[in-house]
Amino acid sequence: MPIVLGANQYGKAEVRLVRVDRATPRHRLTDLSITSQLRGDFAATHLEGDNAGVIATDTQKNTVYAFARDGVGSPEAFLARLARHFLTFPQVTGGRWVAEQFAWERIGADRIAVAAARPDPGREAGHDHSFVRSGGGRRTALVHADTSADGSPGLAVLAGLRDVTLLKSTGSEFHGFPRDRYTTLPEVTDRVLATDLTAWWRYTDEFAASALDAGDGGATFDVRYDAVRSILLETFAGLHSLALQQTVFAMGKAVLESHPEIAEIRLSCPNNHHFLVDLEPFDLDNPGEVFFAADRPYGLIEVAVTRSDAEPDTRSDDGTRGSASPAAEHPVWATIGGFV
Amino acid sequence: MPIVLGANQYGKAEVRLVRVDRATPRHRLTDLSITSQLRGDFAATHLEGDNAGVIATDTQKNTVYAFARDGVGSPEAFLARLARHFLTFPQVTGGRWVAEQFAWERIGADRIAVAAARPDPGREAGHDHSFVRSGGGRRTALVHADTSADGSPGLAVLAGLRDVTLLKSTGSEFHGFPRDRYTTLPEVTDRVLATDLTAWWRYTDEFAASALDAGDGGATFDVRYDAVRSILLETFAGLHSLALQQTVFAMGKAVLESHPEIAEIRLSCPNNHHFLVDLEPFDLDNPGEVFFAADRPYGLIEVAVTRSDAEPDTRSDDGTRGSASPAAEHPVWATIGGFV
Amino acid sequence: MPIVLGANQYGKAEVRLVRVDRATPRHRLTDLSITSQLRGDFAATHLEGDNAGVIATDTQKNTVYAFARDGVGSPEAFLARLARHFLTFPQVTGGRWVAEQFAWERIGADRIAVAAARPDPGREAGHDHSFVRSGGGRRTALVHADTSADGSPGLAVLAGLRDVTLLKSTGSEFHGFPRDRYTTLPEVTDRVLATDLTAWWRYTDEFAASALDAGDGGATFDVRYDAVRSILLETFAGLHSLALQQTVFAMGKAVLESHPEIAEIRLSCPNNHHFLVDLEPFDLDNPGEVFFAADRPYGLIEVAVTRSDAEPDTRSDDGTRGSASPAAEHPVWATIGGFV
Amino acid sequence: MPIVLGANQYGKAEVRLVRVDRATPRHRLTDLSITSQLRGDFAATHLEGDNAGVIATDTQKNTVYAFARDGVGSPEAFLARLARHFLTFPQVTGGRWVAEQFAWERIGADRIAVAAARPDPGREAGHDHSFVRSGGGRRTALVHADTSADGSPGLAVLAGLRDVTLLKSTGSEFHGFPRDRYTTLPEVTDRVLATDLTAWWRYTDEFAASALDAGDGGATFDVRYDAVRSILLETFAGLHSLALQQTVFAMGKAVLESHPEIAEIRLSCPNNHHFLVDLEPFDLDNPGEVFFAADRPYGLIEVAVTRSDAEPDTRSDDGTRGSASPAAEHPVWATIGGFV
Repeated sequence: MPIVLGANQYGKAEVRLVRVDRATPRHRLTDLSITSQLRGDFAATHLEGDNAGVIATDTQKNTVYAFARDGVGSPEAFLARLARHFLTFPQVTGGRWVAEQFAWERIGADRIAVAAARPDPGREAGHDHSFVRSGGGRRTALVHADTSADGSPGLAVLAGLRDVTLLKSTGSEFHGFPRDRYTTLPEVTDRVLATDLTAWWRYTDEFAASALDAGDGGATFDVRYDAVRSILLETFAGLHSLALQQTVFAMGKAVLESHPEIAEIRLSCPNNHHFLVDLEPFDLDNPGEVFFAADRPYGLIEVAVTRSDAEPDTRSDDGTRGSASPAAEHPVWATIGGFV
Repeated sequence: MPIVLGANQYGKAEVRLVRVDRATPRHRLTDLSITSQLRGDFAATHLEGDNAGVIATDTQKNTVYAFARDGVGSPEAFLARLARHFLTFPQVTGGRWVAEQFAWERIGADRIAVAAARPDPGREAGHDHSFVRSGGGRRTALVHADTSADGSPGLAVLAGLRDVTLLKSTGSEFHGFPRDRYTTLPEVTDRVLATDLTAWWRYTDEFAASALDAGDGGATFDVRYDAVRSILLETFAGLHSLALQQTVFAMGKAVLESHPEIAEIRLSCPNNHHFLVDLEPFDLDNPGEVFFAADRPYGLIEVAVTRSDAEPDTRSDDGTRGSASPAAEHPVWATIGGFV
Repeated sequence: MPIVLGANQYGKAEVRLVRVDRATPRHRLTDLSITSQLRGDFAATHLEGDNAGVIATDTQKNTVYAFARDGVGSPEAFLARLARHFLTFPQVTGGRWVAEQFAWERIGADRIAVAAARPDPGREAGHDHSFVRSGGGRRTALVHADTSADGSPGLAVLAGLRDVTLLKSTGSEFHGFPRDRYTTLPEVTDRVLATDLTAWWRYTDEFAASALDAGDGGATFDVRYDAVRSILLETFAGLHSLALQQTVFAMGKAVLESHPEIAEIRLSCPNNHHFLVDLEPFDLDNPGEVFFAADRPYGLIEVAVTRSDAEPDTRSDDGTRGSASPAAEHPVWATIGGFV
Repeated sequence: MPIVLGANQYGKAEVRLVRVDRATPRHRLTDLSITSQLRGDFAATHLEGDNAGVIATDTQKNTVYAFARDGVGSPEAFLARLARHFLTFPQVTGGRWVAEQFAWERIGADRIAVAAARPDPGREAGHDHSFVRSGGGRRTALVHADTSADGSPGLAVLAGLRDVTLLKSTGSEFHGFPRDRYTTLPEVTDRVLATDLTAWWRYTDEFAASALDAGDGGATFDVRYDAVRSILLETFAGLHSLALQQTVFAMGKAVLESHPEIAEIRLSCPNNHHFLVDLEPFDLDNPGEVFFAADRPYGLIEVAVTRSDAEPDTRSDDGTRGSASPAAEHPVWATIGGFV
């Protein structure tokens, strides 16, 4: 069989863009790492080194910086602007644009929050132009385009977060699993449950299109991001867990229940094992107090939660269906690494 | 639409296994990081926290260590052993098993190699039980199973390498690309070309099945790995490059040309920019000698090279076809992160 | 000259200890990485492999976990407990014990803070036993012992923080530096100033001794840590900077001015360059809005601020002396990596 | 007591320099990360933001690149050139210049080595201008200057290596250590011993001065580096180990014995624990074959080996003295992080 060029994409990765909004003396900061990747008719460069159609990755980088001059808005909106620009090139039939956002807080904001019982009304907390980078993980966004089938410029818009480290010191059990020759794990009714949450959710095409056309720089996406993050964390906190799988599915389900504008969500959660230290050799008990936090290996739980146009399955009490017949797979997922 | 459980998988990641083969005083060392992930009928744990079918990730880890007692062989063969074991559980309908292998050399082996003109015949170089870890990237392997369609226990076997850092100090050009408002990159006829090669190739089902059944611990895979690695590096070295895309495609094509037992190969190559430093302000020329090696951003080139059952395309001189009509996508690729 | 054993130390590094305080249903979490290193009469193991005096590093690890059973308190107090324990072994004449602490917030705490105008009095915010790891760097502590001179069990107690990422979007200039053949940097009166702050401060022996003897688990150190961190950040924010050196010295000086119980402080601050992107090729201006955040190289500023028993220097307007005659160097600094 | 500026230094860190030597079509590659730090009369910038004496870190970076135009030679020689240049500024009284070098091999060199029984005489192996980066750790160098005492421009020259990962699969015991309440470690007569070797050695002032003046770009240092690396590895391999301390001391001692031009050496070696997996629950024995390679915690052994002008100690059989009375501490060690 002849050897052929298969799927391919190229671009510039991790363009580090820091945007200072100086519209008022109270600066605002946007800190992004942006990746732009193009797909299309690029056979000539692969086969013959003919670059006549190759929008240089350096040009892609320059475009990111030039577009930032007009403001960035939400990462979803900024990526969509890039996507629409590159899709105007006839040789480009698709691509993916990804952003990772670092959060910053104003220095001193936490102090004034403490005194929030009697704030100066209308006065936000913290310094006007000095910031400290926050933790709690990073916000992510992804815009995916594929016009190869019908020429439609429809964009899939995903949002997410990564490396949000969570821990419950109780309210987690794990038992009832099968025991075979290789099973040594004891059953436990109280354990530490910890993970580094990574999630991606996909907005419905209708919602994405209207949010991008709203003319507000995608502010809607910022509101959604904050809400989804809260739901994920509070579901993790609130659910008494019988398995990390149960917790992760519940987190995704809670997001879909509250957000009809989200079509599906995928979560990837390591099980960051915290082993109760055996203090008996030292004549000490250890009633769930002293733990060793292990590095490797770790459990790894990956779950997609989606919507089905099929009838609800009667097997589960709450009408939630099992693993059969989700809606057809969206092609964007094939481009996201490390996921089911 | 009702909310349903979509695709899901779980397991234990990065089980660090070091196996010492002490069959003779000349020890052999196998150093692996192994990930085991299962798919199947796990709805109950997600929906209700019922773990009756959940083979604990701790059990998966134990199985890795227990199986290693009988020897490891090639990583492909070891993963296939794990796959076949876990597929005997009725609730498991598929999974993926991944290995990353660290290479070690015998201490002193390089010295004796220098004296290789008159070696003790039959005597390999280096110390019997003392080793230094090699660089040059890591070998990878992946076994993928999906019996959900037809119950077939066929295993897809992939091999690869990652983080092999390559550099050409000449023999690379980049010009002829389009110039738009955002293009500032100069055209160059001599540049440094550098990358960190990551590649995955998939063996044909026929070859994989026979190699796994050969009863030699998968030694065939070791031979193939060495050969493919050499082809990749020597093609990088030998090709006068007009674009990194051209180089990467040629690397993959050379592998497929020499190895009919490989069905397809995918390569992911950052363009590690080495910028010629402008020494003119210091009244110095810089004829391709002094470079700044940048970290971010970097170009990113991802290419699949595959075989087609279609007629060869006459557009390209060498009968290699363009981007149309590759054979149908193998489902394993959806499970490999960071690839086209 | 004969070859001799010089300085040496050994121990266990990065013992990952997570302590859950379950005294009430409102759990408290302490998350530490602890390193224990011993010095003393260990010549026999080095010279002859005679381990009769070698307190195994595994035993040091066990001791950390066993001591944690009684509670941890401040990291300084916990390290001092370890130090005093190991100093009871006759062969141990000194050592260093280091902790790095990860901060966690209660899930939901930020939400309730927003509603803080009408809180339930006496009710803290956030979930009782579910946490999200905070950013903003890590707290560090170090206890150093050296009884080799006089047998005194006096402990030097240091506290610090690391990887606190700070940025000012204005209020920073850099000009007036000398220009030689190799100088191309333009002078600027408005730039982004960013750093990852690492600092260590040493408490006076008097203060350390009384704080360790207070019987409150070292709570005083927690108060000091919060206060010093605030001073460092607010000085960074508040000072109009003419050089990162000036900012860093001012940060240290502000700490010493407010905290007579601190003998000296050392700061290590990369200059995380944010380069204004040249948008002129795209017919755009860039009035301090679009920046490229570079990775390497970076500036690196390291400054010790200390107290002198000498007369104040009249050269500086504020009575602060220059570089001459600091108090004699404390031996602990030789054990802290990456510092002046 | 008045607050004063203490020790301070500043400069540019991790300047990534790749130098291609194109003197012949057989290119040679030098790949360095260079840090330059200056000490001296910099009180004005710290106290008042007066930069009149501050050689900009950007200028230091430019100087690195400009000097590389003339060739690099050994890292020690290149750093000394930088040191001597910066010491010509009257405000500079000292500094430290550090290099980390990445090794590259020619692509194909290993193949031709195999055929080395009948090589083309005078023809080295491998491609002329295509390279693959080697592993086996990184070479380091450091030049330290301090003229503050006597104005002498004497340079201390150190060389080293880091992250050389070593493993012995047998020939290592650990027993005879004391057992207290917290000791659970079993005694073993056969274990895996593994480490990531970091070492720094200091050349005598006489040797350094003459090697730097030899006019050969410091080629002598390259020869010494290769020889010391071999001694370190072969001592690790050859010594039957009763403790990692014994191995590490022996490694340093072997270097000093063979190299009178080296005044002292310091080694920092984690004990990368490889735990024998308990396979008994699976009805399997494990005669030293299946190991779990742990990440954290790890042992940490740090040893200085030096020369003494005192009489040899009669306590040790081989005339090697114990821990007392090494020659006075060289100030350079205070500037090297993570060492005893």
